[in-house]
Amino acid sequence: MTKVAVFGAGSWGTAFATVLAGAGNQVSLWARRQSVCDVINTQHENPDYLPGIRLSEAITATHDPAAAAEGAEAVVLSVPSQSLRENLRDWAGVLPDAVPLVSLMKGVEVGTTLRMSEVIAELTGAGPERIAVVSGPNLAREIAEGQPAAAVVACADEGTAHRLQKLCHSGAFRPYTNTDVVGCELGGATKNVIALAVGMAVGFGFGDNARASVITRGLAETARLGAALGADEHTFSGLAGLGDLVATCSSPLSRNRTFGEKLGQGMTVAEIAGATRQVAEGVKSCSSITELAHRHDIEMPIAEAVSKVVAGEMTPKDMLFSLVSRSAKAERW
Amino acid sequence: MTKVAVFGAGSWGTAFATVLAGAGNQVSLWARRQSVCDVINTQHENPDYLPGIRLSEAITATHDPAAAAEGAEAVVLSVPSQSLRENLRDWAGVLPDAVPLVSLMKGVEVGTTLRMSEVIAELTGAGPERIAVVSGPNLAREIAEGQPAAAVVACADEGTAHRLQKLCHSGAFRPYTNTDVVGCELGGATKNVIALAVGMAVGFGFGDNARASVITRGLAETARLGAALGADEHTFSGLAGLGDLVATCSSPLSRNRTFGEKLGQGMTVAEIAGATRQVAEGVKSCSSITELAHRHDIEMPIAEAVSKVVAGEMTPKDMLFSLVSRSAKAERW
Repeated sequence: MTKVAVFGAGSWGTAFATVLAGAGNQVSLWARRQSVCDVINTQHENPDYLPGIRLSEAITATHDPAAAAEGAEAVVLSVPSQSLRENLRDWAGVLPDAVPLVSLMKGVEVGTTLRMSEVIAELTGAGPERIAVVSGPNLAREIAEGQPAAAVVACADEGTAHRLQKLCHSGAFRPYTNTDVVGCELGGATKNVIALAVGMAVGFGFGDNARASVITRGLAETARLGAALGADEHTFSGLAGLGDLVATCSSPLSRNRTFGEKLGQGMTVAEIAGATRQVAEGVKSCSSITELAHRHDIEMPIAEAVSKVVAGEMTPKDMLFSLVSRSAKAERW
Repeated sequence: MTKVAVFGAGSWGTAFATVLAGAGNQVSLWARRQSVCDVINTQHENPDYLPGIRLSEAITATHDPAAAAEGAEAVVLSVPSQSLRENLRDWAGVLPDAVPLVSLMKGVEVGTTLRMSEVIAELTGAGPERIAVVSGPNLAREIAEGQPAAAVVACADEGTAHRLQKLCHSGAFRPYTNTDVVGCELGGATKNVIALAVGMAVGFGFGDNARASVITRGLAETARLGAALGADEHTFSGLAGLGDLVATCSSPLSRNRTFGEKLGQGMTVAEIAGATRQVAEGVKSCSSITELAHRHDIEMPIAEAVSKVVAGEMTPKDMLFSLVSRSAKAERW
């Protein structure tokens, strides 16, 4: 039986472990806290992140990175984006050589503006043929419940993408291959920021028309940034662009949308962060995405406005009206 | 004061009349039934389609097409797609020459597979410089409530598009111009069919991941058809493509999505049609869109499957599983 290591037992890491187990693999799940490992190993549940989901016995948890990684034919990374660098420093000695390293993470590093695959390359020395990304409309809870979903497995090397596709293809989870790592990663990172904006619109009381406009214009500005960074425009119309964005922006299960909703209702970032356990990636990534846009001279009015709201420099109300009242021109890309 | 005629007092025709009135125009609204005209003129409400919405006194209704059209500087057409030809035959003598004819309709004519602008051209003899389309994420009820929304005004002639943009630009309604009439019309017509599929997924109990996948793949097949018909690919990523599709597929206000939901719950087309007052355009247009796809040798698996369900040749359950279980390949366009 193939062994796959998943580093990170948050909701998406754990849900992806269920996909891998469902596709017939033995999964070794690394968790930061020993208590989480114990509950997974004895009760086959991860009550902090996926309460009520029975985990397969093919999933075992460990707090020891070397034990998690040993003999794995692929290593999946699913930790909060801003902690990846620090984590990889700890794990550098134990990750197996030559196996694919798969990022499930959707963020851009603050300070460096590096995408997660770039952080992985820098810290592990792995070449692009070994670094892959899985992305798409994949709300963790639904995946863990075994509901049908499609995703993209992207790697510069098609052979690696195909091997990973086989590794995670199950009855309910249908992965498509793609070679556009940059587009898939940008789509994922930016959608969290757009979801914050959509959440603000919802929280403020705007309807489905306004919400759909923010999604549409948000995807357009993401594609503009993508083009500047060498991504394939079509990726943004696909599962890792549009698909992921729509799922996140539609679902009350989405942390970023929910965080935005609370902002739209008038709570501050500090108040929301204090009241919720989970990280909203968009809150961390919005400033680095805006910085990336500035460096490449790309206009991203939604990401820019979200960054200002998160920094406390603009109210959600002013942000929403500034987006709505932009002067009427030709529709442009 | 500029006078604009709106032919058709259904929910979208009436809501667009409120946009025109809000932008400072006098609106003459033609309604098929005299009783509807009377209520609009005396009570300033259209209770059959937009109950509870107070209509501006700048909107007056008439059952007489000549009276509606007289002196209008633009004529807006908003009748059920499959009745446009018959209606235009009645109106041919009274429509003013040389003014723009604007379609709000989202369908493809059964039998001829003509888009609405093509039916208008054929019946009125108007050239492309006079025929325009308004489309976008525009749920009628929200527009009538004055909630913020963006839209596209498309005409082959940019000058006409700009004039119409000015005519309907208000504080809450923000129109962008575009010259891609074909793309805007196809986006609108096909989204009704995709919304039926999304509704079926929702009615059947699938979650947001599956819904987002159907939206994504549905837009991809729409864009494929569009490319074959000469549309600009970018239109499908814009407000009249993605925007309209997402708004329709998200909203419980959408007739097509609601119709699909009932199909997904096991009702038949006849049962649903018997129980609801309003027409679900997608039910009528799915066969003509599929026919159009066949003629141009384009694969549209979702539209094809919806047509089969509507024709009673496939169950929604079989349709959904056939879409979900398509073999995993490279993501393609």
